[in-house]
Amino acid sequence: MSTELLTKIELTPIGTIRSGFTALSDCPSASRFNNGTCDIIINPELEEGLHNITLSSHIVVLYWFHKANRQRVTRRIVPGQKKRGVFASRSPFRPNPVALSVVKLIKHEGNKLVVSGLDCLDGTKVVDIKPYSPEDDCFPEASIGWTFP
Amino acid sequence: MSTELLTKIELTPIGTIRSGFTALSDCPSASRFNNGTCDIIINPELEEGLHNITLSSHIVVLYWFHKANRQRVTRRIVPGQKKRGVFASRSPFRPNPVALSVVKLIKHEGNKLVVSGLDCLDGTKVVDIKPYSPEDDCFPEASIGWTFP
Repeated sequence: MSTELLTKIELTPIGTIRSGFTALSDCPSASRFNNGTCDIIINPELEEGLHNITLSSHIVVLYWFHKANRQRVTRRIVPGQKKRGVFASRSPFRPNPVALSVVKLIKHEGNKLVVSGLDCLDGTKVVDIKPYSPEDDCFPEASIGWTFP
Repeated sequence: MSTELLTKIELTPIGTIRSGFTALSDCPSASRFNNGTCDIIINPELEEGLHNITLSSHIVVLYWFHKANRQRVTRRIVPGQKKRGVFASRSPFRPNPVALSVVKLIKHEGNKLVVSGLDCLDGTKVVDIKPYSPEDDCFPEASIGWTFP
């Protein structure tokens, strides 16, 4: 397949997040504001994909904001801050609302992971899980130039 | 739409990576091993989504490893290291091969971003771009329990 002709990409959810949040208004604005825990239930046929995951202390979770408006290109202005395009923001409203959170891995039991709190609705579908690699993913010198509310 | 019934997710690429690598054997095993730069060309109709992106020093790029085998559930054993499930590895071979790299944002010109080097083929499709947030994304205390070759 020529990459130039690739116009659609199809994902199949690998699991489901159990956050306990049943309304968007209950969800924290970012995962770091959730001091609780969440369960991630991986589809049973993919359980082997979790083998030895507890060797890592933190994981990256990619998940799907299914309620997001995918037509937005700019972000609402937060009072006193500059307007940004969606790719310059962490808004869930974006053409491909694949959410990304880094969470602490607390427990692995069969096809279930217990992790530090996430910011999404109960029932949210998981796209991918990766071990967090400080060498690749940690840039303490980075500046976002933006204060999230 | 009930999230319980969501079995397929459709993404539309937002742009293309120009890495100069035309064979998989030329691609570095991770973006941090590419000391050069890459261009990211965003689809012209989404150019406004990049507004004010240079307020951030680093960006997260999500892209699609279109050559990946999506049937793999465990990772090849690296000699001397433990076998892992795909979700405990950064292998491109995984059910949803959405790649994640954090890169330095060097320049923004119209619908083009110049960034520090990526690890993928020329022509690779971009799924999303987000500003890197040290508060949300940087965990220097994390351990991956794995040494990448």
